[in-house]
Amino acid sequence: LKLITLLTDFGLLDGYPGILQGVILTISPDARIVDITHNIKPHDVFAGALALGSAAPYFPPGTIHIAVVDPGVGTRRRPLAARLGDQYFVGPDNGLMTDLLNKAEIQGDAIDIIHLNQPRFWLPAVSNVFHGRDIFAPSAAHLANGVPLSELGCIIHDPVRLQLPTPSAIPGGWRGQVIHIDHFGNLATNIESFQLQNFRSVEVSLGSQVIHGLLHAFGDGKPGDLLALIDSSGRLSLCVVNGSAEKYLNIKIGDPVEVVQPESS
Amino acid sequence: LKLITLLTDFGLLDGYPGILQGVILTISPDARIVDITHNIKPHDVFAGALALGSAAPYFPPGTIHIAVVDPGVGTRRRPLAARLGDQYFVGPDNGLMTDLLNKAEIQGDAIDIIHLNQPRFWLPAVSNVFHGRDIFAPSAAHLANGVPLSELGCIIHDPVRLQLPTPSAIPGGWRGQVIHIDHFGNLATNIESFQLQNFRSVEVSLGSQVIHGLLHAFGDGKPGDLLALIDSSGRLSLCVVNGSAEKYLNIKIGDPVEVVQPESS
Amino acid sequence: LKLITLLTDFGLLDGYPGILQGVILTISPDARIVDITHNIKPHDVFAGALALGSAAPYFPPGTIHIAVVDPGVGTRRRPLAARLGDQYFVGPDNGLMTDLLNKAEIQGDAIDIIHLNQPRFWLPAVSNVFHGRDIFAPSAAHLANGVPLSELGCIIHDPVRLQLPTPSAIPGGWRGQVIHIDHFGNLATNIESFQLQNFRSVEVSLGSQVIHGLLHAFGDGKPGDLLALIDSSGRLSLCVVNGSAEKYLNIKIGDPVEVVQPESS
Repeated sequence: LKLITLLTDFGLLDGYPGILQGVILTISPDARIVDITHNIKPHDVFAGALALGSAAPYFPPGTIHIAVVDPGVGTRRRPLAARLGDQYFVGPDNGLMTDLLNKAEIQGDAIDIIHLNQPRFWLPAVSNVFHGRDIFAPSAAHLANGVPLSELGCIIHDPVRLQLPTPSAIPGGWRGQVIHIDHFGNLATNIESFQLQNFRSVEVSLGSQVIHGLLHAFGDGKPGDLLALIDSSGRLSLCVVNGSAEKYLNIKIGDPVEVVQPESS
Repeated sequence: LKLITLLTDFGLLDGYPGILQGVILTISPDARIVDITHNIKPHDVFAGALALGSAAPYFPPGTIHIAVVDPGVGTRRRPLAARLGDQYFVGPDNGLMTDLLNKAEIQGDAIDIIHLNQPRFWLPAVSNVFHGRDIFAPSAAHLANGVPLSELGCIIHDPVRLQLPTPSAIPGGWRGQVIHIDHFGNLATNIESFQLQNFRSVEVSLGSQVIHGLLHAFGDGKPGDLLALIDSSGRLSLCVVNGSAEKYLNIKIGDPVEVVQPESS
Repeated sequence: LKLITLLTDFGLLDGYPGILQGVILTISPDARIVDITHNIKPHDVFAGALALGSAAPYFPPGTIHIAVVDPGVGTRRRPLAARLGDQYFVGPDNGLMTDLLNKAEIQGDAIDIIHLNQPRFWLPAVSNVFHGRDIFAPSAAHLANGVPLSELGCIIHDPVRLQLPTPSAIPGGWRGQVIHIDHFGNLATNIESFQLQNFRSVEVSLGSQVIHGLLHAFGDGKPGDLLALIDSSGRLSLCVVNGSAEKYLNIKIGDPVEVVQPESS
């Protein structure tokens, strides 16, 4: 199985993701290609890094993830390929792989990061505006074909990293922030379940709203209820049953969230 | 050919459909995966059942359809797998397979419905909010690998069914309703072509509009014309040539439609 | 590799693209299928032809492109299949393949155009409203299986062609127009890089805006800057760094653009 995934901010209007697939299949006809998403908000590298970090653990060992959210395309920012444990990354050097890199480091996995500087593995004509097509897709296809990372470029040790926001301790709990709003309008925070594991109960504050207790599942509330639960990535999340917490609360990415253990509990 | 389809209300923003593909390919690397749609209106089980019923007949025997529109995820609603004639269904027990089940019964096909209760075929950690990833995708992948339905769980005979609305007879015709509005703004009704087969002509009433006659094809009208025709699923449908009947008529799902044979015909 | 691409105006709401895949895989189980886009503006044949022309060169020889933007479905417009150099086209006879045909002619490639008139290669029941499903998908699948073009229908020499707009010479430069607005809000014109190759510098006028000079890459401007550059298809394009030129300029398809060599250069 030669598995390649695509994660971009290209949208689904213009055929750009299909063009990447055409380039890949020209070089590696038996590659399998999976779209993770092409609807990352344009130029939002942080959102891309987060989405890639959420999806990558569910792919088999050896999967090559092409991620292209690339406001610096055509400038001196480096094109990269990397082995991060049992997964591979191909994309611009702007922090998109931060979450994968952090996890690989924490787990003590093998890490090799390569500056792609061998044009013989690219398309013959390289534009200044579409490196997904001209550099990243062909490099990933050659990698899938068995070309070793070391032939694609030279090792580097200073990739760009994003500073992912972490929650801070407050009396009796944590102060974090909303880091993602999904298709359903669920608000994911950067407060993770392990940080709440000794809490007998929780009280979550967001704007003027206070939510008491964590529910087990959406269906345990009544339609329209605002509730807190641990989402499928292990994050404290605010949701409206059969509705949108985003619309209900008029919240945006970066807004603060506090969670404490109530004194009476 | 191990063919698995995906039909969900996950949207294309967050990478959830790609995660399902990663899970499937980890377990069944040679499975082929087709997206039917991920844009079912959130929590709209009826719309999901209708879309699955329209698409499934065009897939080859043995296809496994994963359908996840699942407001009850994490509650006591059962996860199911089913053989319905020559197609398979994997998803929550909330009526999503109603149309497939009805057709299999009418055709006298073999039907086996299983309550998925064998966690060894699921992901090791099962969340309360994403059974598509944790239960349905791995179960479908094992099914594709040849694990028999009977190993995945125990037989049930009382699946949840939706009551699909049927048209009622009125003097000289039928009273039905709009059941789907498609991407083009075409309005599909629950009145089917066989119910009109003895009509020499038709008069369709919808709100204050009356349409005389059925056209053969969109292109037989002039741009902007409101017309009635039999759509690709065999349903009486209201359309605007090169335009949107939805915008033209300001109609919504559930609005009544009457069709009669005009007296003069 | 039996590679089939899909380009339509079906949208991603209703499952129509998935139905095409089901039909194809029923006939040709080992075909590989790539979505180019399903978000062509409804009935916009010109936009479809342009998108197909941009994407096709990146697919391997032998690729079969199904393109369905088909306001004339069910009328006397002919269904076609064509060999245009090393690529194949299947779709309605309305000009969708114009760009592919023009390129094949310019390159002196072999061209064979067939009127699909052999119903034995279609689905048994053909609707008047969904030839993508009933005629084009099965015809493409049989073509992928090795059925020769000549068995699918009879040769024609008068396919419908679109008149693609070309820029006109003005004193010191060119007057063209905006022909595409992409997902990022970048405005592509029909003025191509080869037409500017002897220009020492350029001055681009669009509405009341004048842009001086061509930048190399998005990242060479400051966020919010309006700039001109050569896009990934070799077209003069107007862009806003990390923003949308469409919103900034309130421009639409067809609006005029002039580019001249400034007198002082």
